[in-house]
Amino acid sequence: MSALDELRADLATVADLERAGAVLDWDQETQMPPGGVEDRANQLATVGRLSHELFTSDRIGELLERAGEEVAGQPYESFEASLVRVTKREWEQATRLPAELVENIARAGAEARPDWLRARQESDWSIFAPRMERTVEFSLALAEAHGWTASPYDALIERSEPGLSTRFLEGLFGELKEAIVPMVRAIAARPEAAPDEVLDRDFDPELQLGISLAVVQELGYDLERGRLDKSAHPFCVSLGAGDVRITTRVKRNIRDSCLFSTIHESGHGMYDQGIPKILDRSPLWGGASSGVHESQSRFWENLVCRSRAFWIYFFPRLAKVFPAQLADQTAESFFRANNRVRPSYIRVDADEVTYNLHVLMRFEIEKQLIEGSLAVGDVPEAWNQALDQYLGLAPTGALTGPLQDIHWVQAPLGGFVGYALGNLIGAQLLERVRVDVPEFDSLLAVGSFGPLLEWLHREVHAHGRKFTPDELTERASGGPIRSDAWIRYARVKFGEIYGLDW
Amino acid sequence: MSALDELRADLATVADLERAGAVLDWDQETQMPPGGVEDRANQLATVGRLSHELFTSDRIGELLERAGEEVAGQPYESFEASLVRVTKREWEQATRLPAELVENIARAGAEARPDWLRARQESDWSIFAPRMERTVEFSLALAEAHGWTASPYDALIERSEPGLSTRFLEGLFGELKEAIVPMVRAIAARPEAAPDEVLDRDFDPELQLGISLAVVQELGYDLERGRLDKSAHPFCVSLGAGDVRITTRVKRNIRDSCLFSTIHESGHGMYDQGIPKILDRSPLWGGASSGVHESQSRFWENLVCRSRAFWIYFFPRLAKVFPAQLADQTAESFFRANNRVRPSYIRVDADEVTYNLHVLMRFEIEKQLIEGSLAVGDVPEAWNQALDQYLGLAPTGALTGPLQDIHWVQAPLGGFVGYALGNLIGAQLLERVRVDVPEFDSLLAVGSFGPLLEWLHREVHAHGRKFTPDELTERASGGPIRSDAWIRYARVKFGEIYGLDW
Repeated sequence: MSALDELRADLATVADLERAGAVLDWDQETQMPPGGVEDRANQLATVGRLSHELFTSDRIGELLERAGEEVAGQPYESFEASLVRVTKREWEQATRLPAELVENIARAGAEARPDWLRARQESDWSIFAPRMERTVEFSLALAEAHGWTASPYDALIERSEPGLSTRFLEGLFGELKEAIVPMVRAIAARPEAAPDEVLDRDFDPELQLGISLAVVQELGYDLERGRLDKSAHPFCVSLGAGDVRITTRVKRNIRDSCLFSTIHESGHGMYDQGIPKILDRSPLWGGASSGVHESQSRFWENLVCRSRAFWIYFFPRLAKVFPAQLADQTAESFFRANNRVRPSYIRVDADEVTYNLHVLMRFEIEKQLIEGSLAVGDVPEAWNQALDQYLGLAPTGALTGPLQDIHWVQAPLGGFVGYALGNLIGAQLLERVRVDVPEFDSLLAVGSFGPLLEWLHREVHAHGRKFTPDELTERASGGPIRSDAWIRYARVKFGEIYGLDW
Repeated sequence: MSALDELRADLATVADLERAGAVLDWDQETQMPPGGVEDRANQLATVGRLSHELFTSDRIGELLERAGEEVAGQPYESFEASLVRVTKREWEQATRLPAELVENIARAGAEARPDWLRARQESDWSIFAPRMERTVEFSLALAEAHGWTASPYDALIERSEPGLSTRFLEGLFGELKEAIVPMVRAIAARPEAAPDEVLDRDFDPELQLGISLAVVQELGYDLERGRLDKSAHPFCVSLGAGDVRITTRVKRNIRDSCLFSTIHESGHGMYDQGIPKILDRSPLWGGASSGVHESQSRFWENLVCRSRAFWIYFFPRLAKVFPAQLADQTAESFFRANNRVRPSYIRVDADEVTYNLHVLMRFEIEKQLIEGSLAVGDVPEAWNQALDQYLGLAPTGALTGPLQDIHWVQAPLGGFVGYALGNLIGAQLLERVRVDVPEFDSLLAVGSFGPLLEWLHREVHAHGRKFTPDELTERASGGPIRSDAWIRYARVKFGEIYGLDW
C-alpha cells in the first residue's frame, strides 16, 4: 500500500467524522426537540475532538512526507499532487493551533451567545463588549499561532481565503468604495425608477416555499441528492457527496425573500453537488474558500435571478401562484422592485449595490481592532462614522449597528470578506460565461439554466478545493481576483434601471 | 481521578459515538435523500468501527479491573457496582467477538437484503436460502466466539436476554402453546362476538396521524424530548437522554393501525424518557433487554389501549375526529373490533392471542437450524407444519411464510424471543400495578394515565440496564419471568369478549 493510499484511508475516516458532525448540526437546526441540546453538545464535542485528533496526528504528518515524495513530479493540478499540497496546508494550519486554544474559542463562543442576545434586547454594546474583547483576543492568539508578518489580520484572511492578504484586500476594497459611494448617491435621487411596495404585500408562506423549491429544482439543484427545510437562518450543508441540504426562511411578505434565500442556498448546494466523486472523503472535497463559495450562491441569487432576463421567464409563473398580489405588476416592474437600491442599516437585507459597503465597513473595523488602533469600547462610534462615510446614513443604535451579525460572537474575525469577494469573483465569472455561452441572456429569458450550470460545473465545481481562490479565478475567468468586472456589471445594470450614465 | 471516573469518561465518549450513529440511522430512515446512501454507509461504518475500537480497548479492560476493586463492597444495585458489573459483561461479550466477524456479519446483512427483497417478489425461498445459510453460519460462529455449553442457541439468547437460556424458554413457551392453541380454536367458533369490518373503512391519514400524536402525548410521551415522524417500518430510537424519537406508518384503513403503531413506539419511548439522567452516557442507560423493552411497548399498546376501559374514555374522542366512519359504532363495539382474534399468516398483523404463537414457531425453527436438526432448504416445509400445528392454518407461500420478517437477513438469530417475553413480563407487571394502583381501570376509563406511568418509571424505567430481565421482573412484579400471568390475563379478557369459560 502506498503512503498516498494510507493517507487517503485516514483522511476518509476524518471526513466521515466531520460529516457525522454535520448531520448532528443539521438535525439540531431543523429537527431536534428542545430536550436534546445537552446531549447534542456532548456528541458534537466528542466527534469534533476525535476528528481533530485523527487529522492532527503525527501519523498524518509522516504519511504526508512520504506521499509528498511519491507524488513529486505529478502535475500541479493532478489529484495526487493537489491532495498532498492542500492536505499539507490544512494539516500545518491545524497542528499549529494548540488544542486548548481551539476548545477555548468554541467555549467562549458558546458563552458569548446569550450575552449577544441580551445585548441585542437592550440594544446595548457595553453588555457585549467584554465578549467582543475575547473575540479580538482569541483572534490575535490564533493569528500568533498561525504566524504573520505584515499584519495579524493576514493570518485570519489566509485561513479563510488562502493566498490573499490584508494589503491586497485594502486595494480591492478601496476601488470598490470609490466606485460604489457615488453610485449610491446618484441612485438615491431617483427612487421612482424602482418602486418596491409590492414586496410588502401578503404572500402565503406555503405557496412561497412551494414555488421556491420548484425554482431551485429548475435551476439545477438536485433533490435526489438534497432537500429543503426551514430554519431560523438559512444555510447549506453537505452531509456527503450525494447529500447536500439547504434550508430557507419564510415570512408573509416577500421583502424578507424566501425565494431569494432559497436560490442563494441552492447556489451553494449546486456547487457542492457539482464536485466530482473522485474528490470525495478527502480535504479536496468542498469549495475553494468561503469567498468562492459565495461567488456561486450570489451568482444564482443576483446575477441570474435578479436579472431582467430571468423575470421575463419567471414573472408569468409567479403571477399564476399569486394572481391577486401581482395583478398590477409586469415582469419589468417586478424586476425593478427586486432591484431597488437604498442605503440601509442591515447587511443581510441590503441590495446588490450597497451590500459590498456593509462588508467594507466591517473589514475596516475588524482590521483596526486586531491591529490595535481601535478599542472595543469605541466600536459603536467607529460604526456610526463608517455609516456616514460609506452609506450616508445617520447614526444608529447598537442593535441595528454592530450587534446585528452573529459573526463577532466567536473568534476568529475575518469572516465577512468572503461576501464581497464572492460578488467580485461572480462578476468575473459572468464576463467569461457571456463569452463562452453567447446566448446566455436569451437562455435565462426562456428558463434554460442547464448551459450555465454545466459551465460552472466544468470551470469551478470540478476542481473542489484543489486551487486557491486566486488560482481558481485565474483559471476560470482568465485573470486574478479584481474589482473591475463587478464595477462594470453594477454600472451597466443599475445605470440602465435608474437612467444614469457613469 | 479514580479509575471509575476515568472509566465513565471513556464510556461517555463511546456513548456519544453510538448516539451519533443513531442520529445517522434515524436521519437515513426519515430524512435522507436517496443520493446519500453510499456516504451514509461510510459514515456509519466509521463511527461504528471507532466506537467498537474504543469500547473493546485494553484500556477499558484495565480500568474495569481497577474500578472493580474500587467499588467492591458497594451494594449490588448501586450505580457504581452496577456500572462496573454491566460494563464488564458487555466488554467481555464485545471483546470475545473478532472484529472481522462483526464486519462480516454487517456486510453479509447488507448484501442479503436485495436478495431477500427479490425472493419476496418471487415468493421463492430458494432465492434467499444461500443468504439464510450465511445467517445460520454466522450465528453459529458468533455462538462459538461467545461460548456455550448446552446449546449454541443459548449464546444468542444470552446476548439479547442476559441470564435466560434455551431450556428455560422451551419451558415457558411450552406452557404458552398448551394454553393458547385451544383458546384460539374455541374463539374461532365465535367470530360474531367481535366483528371488525369497521377497521377497513376509509380514514384520512393526516387525521389519523394527528389523533395518534395527541394520544401518545396524553399517555405521557414527552414531545419536548421527542418527536414523531413517518417511516417504512415504525421504530423508536434514543439520540440522547433528552431526545427519544418515534416513528409510525399510516394507511387509509385502520386495520394496519397507525394509532396502535404509534402507541407501541411511544411505549418504547416512554421507557427511555424515564431513565434517570445519572445513568446517561454509560452502558447503564437504556432498556434492560429487548424483551423488557417490548414489555413496555406492548403494555401501552395492548394492556392499556386495547382495554375496554381505554375505549370508554377514548371512543367518543375518536368518533369526533371520524364521525362518518364510526357512526354505527359504540365504545364496546369498537373495543371488540380491536380485539378480534383470528389466526393469520403475518406476525406483525397478528392479534394479541395468536401473536405469541408466531414467535413460538420461529423459536422452534431457529433452534433447530442452529442446533443442526433442520436444513435451510427445509424451512418452508417446517414452516407449514408449524402453521398447522400452532395456528391451524393451511400451508402458505414463502412471501407470507418464512420470508415475511427482515430478521433473518442478518445474523444473529434469536431476535424474536423478546416479543413473547415482552408479553409475559407486561402481564406480570400489570398484576402488580392492579395491586399498587387499585383504581387502575377507572383511571384509564377517565383518561388518567399519570399514575401508571409513574409506577413504570419507578419500578422499571428508573433502573436502566442495571438488572437482567429476570432480576428486574422479580423486583418489579415479585417473581421471575413466568407464563401464568399472561395466560390468566388472556383467559379473562378474551373469555369475557368471546363468552368462553376456561
